[in-house]
Amino acid sequence: MARGLVEGILARDRGLLARAISLVEAEGADGDELYRQVCSLRRDSPIVAFTGPPGVGKSTLVGAYIGYLRREGKTVAVAAVDPSSPLSGGAILGDRLRMVEHDGDEGVFIRSLASRGQAGGLSAALYRVADVLSAAAYDVVIVETVGSGQVDVAVADVADVKVVVGAPGLGDHVQAIKAGILEIADILVLNKADTPHAEQAFGQLEAMLKLRAKSARDVPVVATIATLKSGIPELAAAIGARLTVDKLTDRPARDRDRARKLLAQAAARAVMDHIAQERSAHLARICDEVATGRASFTAATAEVIGMIAKTVITAQGRT
Amino acid sequence: MARGLVEGILARDRGLLARAISLVEAEGADGDELYRQVCSLRRDSPIVAFTGPPGVGKSTLVGAYIGYLRREGKTVAVAAVDPSSPLSGGAILGDRLRMVEHDGDEGVFIRSLASRGQAGGLSAALYRVADVLSAAAYDVVIVETVGSGQVDVAVADVADVKVVVGAPGLGDHVQAIKAGILEIADILVLNKADTPHAEQAFGQLEAMLKLRAKSARDVPVVATIATLKSGIPELAAAIGARLTVDKLTDRPARDRDRARKLLAQAAARAVMDHIAQERSAHLARICDEVATGRASFTAATAEVIGMIAKTVITAQGRT
Repeated sequence: MARGLVEGILARDRGLLARAISLVEAEGADGDELYRQVCSLRRDSPIVAFTGPPGVGKSTLVGAYIGYLRREGKTVAVAAVDPSSPLSGGAILGDRLRMVEHDGDEGVFIRSLASRGQAGGLSAALYRVADVLSAAAYDVVIVETVGSGQVDVAVADVADVKVVVGAPGLGDHVQAIKAGILEIADILVLNKADTPHAEQAFGQLEAMLKLRAKSARDVPVVATIATLKSGIPELAAAIGARLTVDKLTDRPARDRDRARKLLAQAAARAVMDHIAQERSAHLARICDEVATGRASFTAATAEVIGMIAKTVITAQGRT
Repeated sequence: MARGLVEGILARDRGLLARAISLVEAEGADGDELYRQVCSLRRDSPIVAFTGPPGVGKSTLVGAYIGYLRREGKTVAVAAVDPSSPLSGGAILGDRLRMVEHDGDEGVFIRSLASRGQAGGLSAALYRVADVLSAAAYDVVIVETVGSGQVDVAVADVADVKVVVGAPGLGDHVQAIKAGILEIADILVLNKADTPHAEQAFGQLEAMLKLRAKSARDVPVVATIATLKSGIPELAAAIGARLTVDKLTDRPARDRDRARKLLAQAAARAVMDHIAQERSAHLARICDEVATGRASFTAATAEVIGMIAKTVITAQGRT
């Protein structure tokens, strides 16, 4: 199974790529083995993230950027993250439709990631999918997400260039950008630049850039009208300029750091699952003591960690 | 220290309450001991959550609801969660201003929580602060948050009644609600019911309710105009009706479940921190093997967990 899929990835066979992604997204034993093989491959496609609040025209912008890259003869893969509740799993699919014009194009591969159901969480799934697309050696890998805390952090880790998209006249959207995603921007796009108050919004974005913790230097603000494909060459140039700033050189170090992060997440998740399922009288007593103020939270946490460590050692000793 | 603060909480002394909250929010040794004492107190104030996307008038609505409760002679405490980026920590403070009319009122206590900087994460801090306010025996404790994945889940756990707020004519806001927070609603509010397309939005919300995973039965949709204080008695009645549905009876079981959840989070966090800081050659080798596809992720995770367990046992053996 895995051998055929690895060859499929390298050949950019769309059907096999889709199967490979589903497999690493789900993270079963087969996905685990396939992802190991993917990690042994060269993975050096530049990864460009587009993020921003809903309604700013992100998908249209990505579609226009794809068109630009295609006219340059470049192949493109897109991993689009659908926002969904941790409770409902409901996904917004409408936006995807705006990229459909590239659907028959063999040089473009578009994949939506559900944002739940992955054993390792969304960020881990995003890493794995980006690795598969990078191993497939697309000229550009695009990650598109709706700005929201957890995903943004993952995007910041996975992407070589982070494009944050806003639009004018949307008080709440500016607020949404202010609240966080501006911090990760390498490039800021003001889309819908032909709507009222665009100039004002442009000034607002530049002012907001100056407020952010990370230095605003070298963060260009690009005005676009994605529906008219206006401003796209400027955007592509800004992205290209970022990619030359030796972003792509130290991939091995990046991959090791990421492995450490993912291992930490996986170990933490194993501990959480263990505690959620553990039905021992010992744990029940600790919980009751915390709930009624007979034990401090810190002391109880240490006791729980010790309890799990003993369980792990015992279990590993048995195997 | 802690003794005076516990008495301050019970007396609803505003200065001491504020100090107590800062202490349990920060989760140092003093906060740990104070929170233990809070957990030994009776904590049975009903907790009402208001959540929804920015721009729907949540704070104005909460302000109007506070006014209603005050006219009924009830005391009210509010914990408002400011959205902020995990990267920037930036907070939106403007909304708070809309509740200022109650600022001189001794029967109202309003507190903003920063959404980062808490050792235990936002949800753990929200639990602790709600417990302090509940121990202070306010007649109603309100938690106000901007709808966003992680916080919503915490709100769903902490609140006895979840009020989800939307507004008409905001395509994106309806989308934002659709994406998740609708799932946790006990009551749905359509605020700004005097603006265009209100009737259409009302129908849309009712239709969306029918789509959600959890049953839509018994989820009333209340139309309000918070700026005019219209619809507030109806909202208060809907909240009151939910609170009689024996939500408040099994607090001990709720507190034990929550203790288990928080202990699991804390243990997981300890594991993550350990791995982030661990500089051993052993861990470096594991990370490198994952990064280069020489070890599968699952095998590496098991190895890391075993490594940590041994470290814990050794460390606890030493103390």
